[in-house]
Amino acid sequence: MFFKEIEGGSLTSPKGFVAGSVSAGLRDQPGTDLAILLGGEKTKAAGVFTKNQIVAPPVTLSQRHLALDDPRAIIVNSAIANAVVGQQGVEDAETMASSTAAQLGIEVSQVLVCSTGVIGVPLPMDLISNGIKAIELKQRDHEFASAILTTDTRTKEFTISVDIAGTEIIIAGTAKGSGMIHPDMATMLAFLTTDANISKECLDRVLRQSVDNSFNMVTIDGDGSTNDSVIFLASNESSIQEINGGEEEKIFQEAVDYVCAHLAKEIALDGEGATKLIEVIVEGGATLDEARVAARTVASSTLMKAAVYGNDPNWGRAVAALGRSGIKINEQTLSLSINGIEMLKEGTPVKFSKEFAAQSMDTEKVEIYIQLNSGNYSAISWTSDLTEEYVHINSAYTT
Amino acid sequence: MFFKEIEGGSLTSPKGFVAGSVSAGLRDQPGTDLAILLGGEKTKAAGVFTKNQIVAPPVTLSQRHLALDDPRAIIVNSAIANAVVGQQGVEDAETMASSTAAQLGIEVSQVLVCSTGVIGVPLPMDLISNGIKAIELKQRDHEFASAILTTDTRTKEFTISVDIAGTEIIIAGTAKGSGMIHPDMATMLAFLTTDANISKECLDRVLRQSVDNSFNMVTIDGDGSTNDSVIFLASNESSIQEINGGEEEKIFQEAVDYVCAHLAKEIALDGEGATKLIEVIVEGGATLDEARVAARTVASSTLMKAAVYGNDPNWGRAVAALGRSGIKINEQTLSLSINGIEMLKEGTPVKFSKEFAAQSMDTEKVEIYIQLNSGNYSAISWTSDLTEEYVHINSAYTT
Repeated sequence: MFFKEIEGGSLTSPKGFVAGSVSAGLRDQPGTDLAILLGGEKTKAAGVFTKNQIVAPPVTLSQRHLALDDPRAIIVNSAIANAVVGQQGVEDAETMASSTAAQLGIEVSQVLVCSTGVIGVPLPMDLISNGIKAIELKQRDHEFASAILTTDTRTKEFTISVDIAGTEIIIAGTAKGSGMIHPDMATMLAFLTTDANISKECLDRVLRQSVDNSFNMVTIDGDGSTNDSVIFLASNESSIQEINGGEEEKIFQEAVDYVCAHLAKEIALDGEGATKLIEVIVEGGATLDEARVAARTVASSTLMKAAVYGNDPNWGRAVAALGRSGIKINEQTLSLSINGIEMLKEGTPVKFSKEFAAQSMDTEKVEIYIQLNSGNYSAISWTSDLTEEYVHINSAYTT
Repeated sequence: MFFKEIEGGSLTSPKGFVAGSVSAGLRDQPGTDLAILLGGEKTKAAGVFTKNQIVAPPVTLSQRHLALDDPRAIIVNSAIANAVVGQQGVEDAETMASSTAAQLGIEVSQVLVCSTGVIGVPLPMDLISNGIKAIELKQRDHEFASAILTTDTRTKEFTISVDIAGTEIIIAGTAKGSGMIHPDMATMLAFLTTDANISKECLDRVLRQSVDNSFNMVTIDGDGSTNDSVIFLASNESSIQEINGGEEEKIFQEAVDYVCAHLAKEIALDGEGATKLIEVIVEGGATLDEARVAARTVASSTLMKAAVYGNDPNWGRAVAALGRSGIKINEQTLSLSINGIEMLKEGTPVKFSKEFAAQSMDTEKVEIYIQLNSGNYSAISWTSDLTEEYVHINSAYTT
């Protein structure tokens, strides 16, 4: 591999970034809930956002600023999504951007805004405004990663270095889940930074491809959210030539894919109430889209997820899910294994020891492998198991 | 209303039907698991089946026999779905039909076959064959309704009488859920009988319409199954003129709708681990299809289902689900109430007492009302809440 993990890295590991956070008082529990990330003057930005038709005002604002300018700062709050609160939400997102711009001495259009948390509750703007003024930006920051969390049980950070044309560049990422996670993202925020020298267009192209193979392949509960955002800032402060196509872009793409896939799996493993990461690998799809749909449909089956939780090798549930996925499935060519134990071979069940299979499933990662035998496309989707704890968490979120 | 419920009625309440069941030994627990329903010589039949692309052999066989002949008998087994077992499954379904035909002295093509239970396990055909010979058919039978159950906690039977052109005809139904329930049916079997005098074509037309408004609007967990079947037998033994169009068909349609909706709600309320029936009413859809999609998407949101379980009026989850439903949603015109308490009015949250709302949700039926304000179409979908018990049941089904 070209990539080297940087232990203890963060969004401020690449040259040119500072970050900081504060406890603005948005949460019922103690903890930081408001954070800023700022890149240097040469920063380029790209973003991918929710496809949910109910879009929170911070998303609309960030999309507009990305189209208008080269944003270099991100203001994020957790606890409250600033979604479905009428015109007030639009004004509050604007105020977040303008207060941040004033505090940092940059243009309003250089600020992106992200919010995550409960829907339908207006932001307490006095707390937000005071919080923005109180944030101290540091060159070595890990607090950003915790300020963005909602029901996540831990921070998710991943940083690597990669050699491109003889220069070491750094790519860092952090993300938050962990409910309402579904293809087309969901209440998911992810932030990436790099010091690579790269154009806005190329950064955008690379980000879109990585998101399709990572965050768009994670599903926790089928509910996409109103606030999903993945934002990538490049400080352009490394000494390499501008990346734009060719071998350099290819290596950079692979490195970003690697960071995004790592974060996507972390999100799945930290799904609400999760005890296991489930990886659904589909091969032999007729098209890339069909392979992805097949993988995601199996990963989003609550019956399959509950079976995995109980170490129950009930592979029929995966097959039933494939059958309702909408893609063409040929039962006669379908094969399936769980953790390497073959259970279905070209449409005919294979005898296996249920006890042994159950034992093999009693681990932190369960792999469901599906061979469609309809073509040459493959895809991987990640999810978590469905547990009593998931229900417990989600039956009393706002009350 | 034209309809009168017949307390204690069953599939054998309409003239011309006998039924019976036996404990063939397919279940681990005691209980009947194999049943036959038989109509008289003038019986007409109609069926609606799963849209899952993985189709169990009994479904394929029943579809063929319906196209070929006028089936008058149904053989059903529970515990094992006879799905995804290779060529053996096709042969076993044929044997079930031919053994039943021999036992009843009718043509093989007059027999419909239904199976429900675990996928990927071959049927023990010796037990089935012995069971078929042992079934005693009775004129007053309630055992059929219990022999078809899997994880259901209770039988679901509903019988009404309706006056059509001065003659009282009877319509009866029974159904089983209760996991893998989703639009396009799922591991759901339902059987209807009537003594009405009706053509095959008209029976088919009425059944399809009723299923779209009832069984296809129930969702428990998003997983449609390989075996779903709704079968309607008409004995043609009442003295009314043949129903075929006009006011008679309209009344008959309404009566069948009523029976199917009742059974659909019973299925939802008996969803695995369920403590509540959730009724999602969508009005103001631009088309009927959009209204249905909206209602079903909200009903299938695990986050919404978990919130209802916890009496949590977290209406934002319904809005997020609407946004990802794929239909066009205008946030500015959207209104929402839970149990009559308005929470969102034309895109702006309405202040309400959370405590009072939570109290109002602490009942067996929770109604989520959504006004899209985009047109004149409406739809209703039913589901159950998502509970720890659902996870418990489904984490150890085969092991």
